Amino acid sequence: MTNAAFIAGDWGTSRLRLYLCAADGAVLDRREGEGASVPDCAGRFAAAVADWDRAYGKLPAVLGGMVGSTIGWKEVPYLECPARPGAVAGASLRFQAEERPIAIAPGLKCANAAGAPDVMRGEEVQILGALRLNPELASGRHLLCMPGTHVKWVRLEDGAVTGFQTALSGELFELLSRHSVLARDGGAVDPASEAFALGLTTARENEKSGLLHLLFSTRSRVVTGTMPKTDAASYLSGLIVGADVGAALALYAPGQVPLVCSPLLAALYARALGFYGVGASTIDGDAAALAGLVQIHAELNR
Amino acid sequence: MTNAAFIAGDWGTSRLRLYLCAADGAVLDRREGEGASVPDCAGRFAAAVADWDRAYGKLPAVLGGMVGSTIGWKEVPYLECPARPGAVAGASLRFQAEERPIAIAPGLKCANAAGAPDVMRGEEVQILGALRLNPELASGRHLLCMPGTHVKWVRLEDGAVTGFQTALSGELFELLSRHSVLARDGGAVDPASEAFALGLTTARENEKSGLLHLLFSTRSRVVTGTMPKTDAASYLSGLIVGADVGAALALYAPGQVPLVCSPLLAALYARALGFYGVGASTIDGDAAALAGLVQIHAELNR
Repeated sequence: MTNAAFIAGDWGTSRLRLYLCAADGAVLDRREGEGASVPDCAGRFAAAVADWDRAYGKLPAVLGGMVGSTIGWKEVPYLECPARPGAVAGASLRFQAEERPIAIAPGLKCANAAGAPDVMRGEEVQILGALRLNPELASGRHLLCMPGTHVKWVRLEDGAVTGFQTALSGELFELLSRHSVLARDGGAVDPASEAFALGLTTARENEKSGLLHLLFSTRSRVVTGTMPKTDAASYLSGLIVGADVGAALALYAPGQVPLVCSPLLAALYARALGFYGVGASTIDGDAAALAGLVQIHAELNR
Repeated sequence: MTNAAFIAGDWGTSRLRLYLCAADGAVLDRREGEGASVPDCAGRFAAAVADWDRAYGKLPAVLGGMVGSTIGWKEVPYLECPARPGAVAGASLRFQAEERPIAIAPGLKCANAAGAPDVMRGEEVQILGALRLNPELASGRHLLCMPGTHVKWVRLEDGAVTGFQTALSGELFELLSRHSVLARDGGAVDPASEAFALGLTTARENEKSGLLHLLFSTRSRVVTGTMPKTDAASYLSGLIVGADVGAALALYAPGQVPLVCSPLLAALYARALGFYGVGASTIDGDAAALAGLVQIHAELNR
């Protein structure tokens, strides 16, 4: 086994997920660790895989995410869109660390629909994974939605990433529910709730008015007694996810959107897409990251 | 003097400004203190005016702002819009505190253009002040803009407040510049800067795309080296103020908007309005609050 085995590492800002993989990508073992923003990625990586080294020797590693940024292990330049899947593997930074071959995937950059530069780091690996897990995405035109702290809306054309746009939805929700008066003690977000639906409806019916002019209604509905305080987080989430989906579909509205994310975020975005008459399918975000790293490893060793 | 003198108190969440006023509203002395969110408004008020009491006896006081909310001294119910200026004075809560006559102004509520309830507390006093300082606002139709943590866009028709809408612009900018990666170490906001103008242009040219899909460009412009880090705060401010002004003018665009706020905010909003071909005049926010309290006192003692 050891000759063809390898290590796959999904290494974001705040979290590291390491997989010991067989040649076909099957997961034999896993480890978790701290994100790429903590100093000494090289030392922490060596420590995390030390027992695998003892058992199997120094296996090659494929890493993706913020580990390739200026705050990570080594900076890997962004690849410009349109980018074909094979180009991502080809643009990986390959080097030896303590006699181990390492490859770190590049991020992607583009000029987005707003005419501004846009960047991603980590999601490009998940896109490769989505294509591996769902080969039908490799032909035709698709809009992928990757919800998270920074939501990426990705245009795929015949398997190539032709562009993308980042929405700050996840971070905005976190900041407002933690630090503002809007949804403090505002309960948990429930995708099935009427409060989430009211947020979605309010966002959809007021696209012209804009999210900035809607957010305060989270507070004013509670203050005037028309909404219980415990509904505030769900309502706020509905406003933000609704505005996010509405803005994305204003540029291009397909019949179906594949969502690459966690189950909770998938439930929120699927319901929001439904409000606009758009269907959703779901690809688990962690599974997509792993599949993407396996794909890059396969392409580098073809 | 003492017979007709009175105390005016502009008492918001985080700040108290007390004025000793002559009968005509001329300011004879002033004090500052902590906001209405700190416990024991009654005791703190008595302590703050104790030396005025010794000099002039217990003068009547007119207070406005969050002092009339559930977190303040005594809750004063919101007055429903449309609300005529005289109705604000009439709806003040009047009571005696240690033999001193006190009046606390009510807040206003309405159903806003987004079909949601909306509320203000403190700004209604500034509106009365703006009408006192600028009597020409008492006839015809006007859109008043009151920038701050929560920006109030107020429709005035023949002197009555017919409705208003709250934008979270100030709070959003504060949260994003303090807690997010967007504009950390992002310099100071400069209303005259090219970065602020670039933010305004980006917001105006992407109204359909929406602010959520634009905010991240603050980061991506810096990461891709197309904008210096020190411009980030000005650019982010331009995005937010631009989206705010664009959304407000989408509902009703007059030729001229009176701004009631501090000089810095007036400079930001005046430039943003200019990008939409709308002129601006400025009424100092503190002066408006004082004039409004003087107006209420005059109406209560007519």
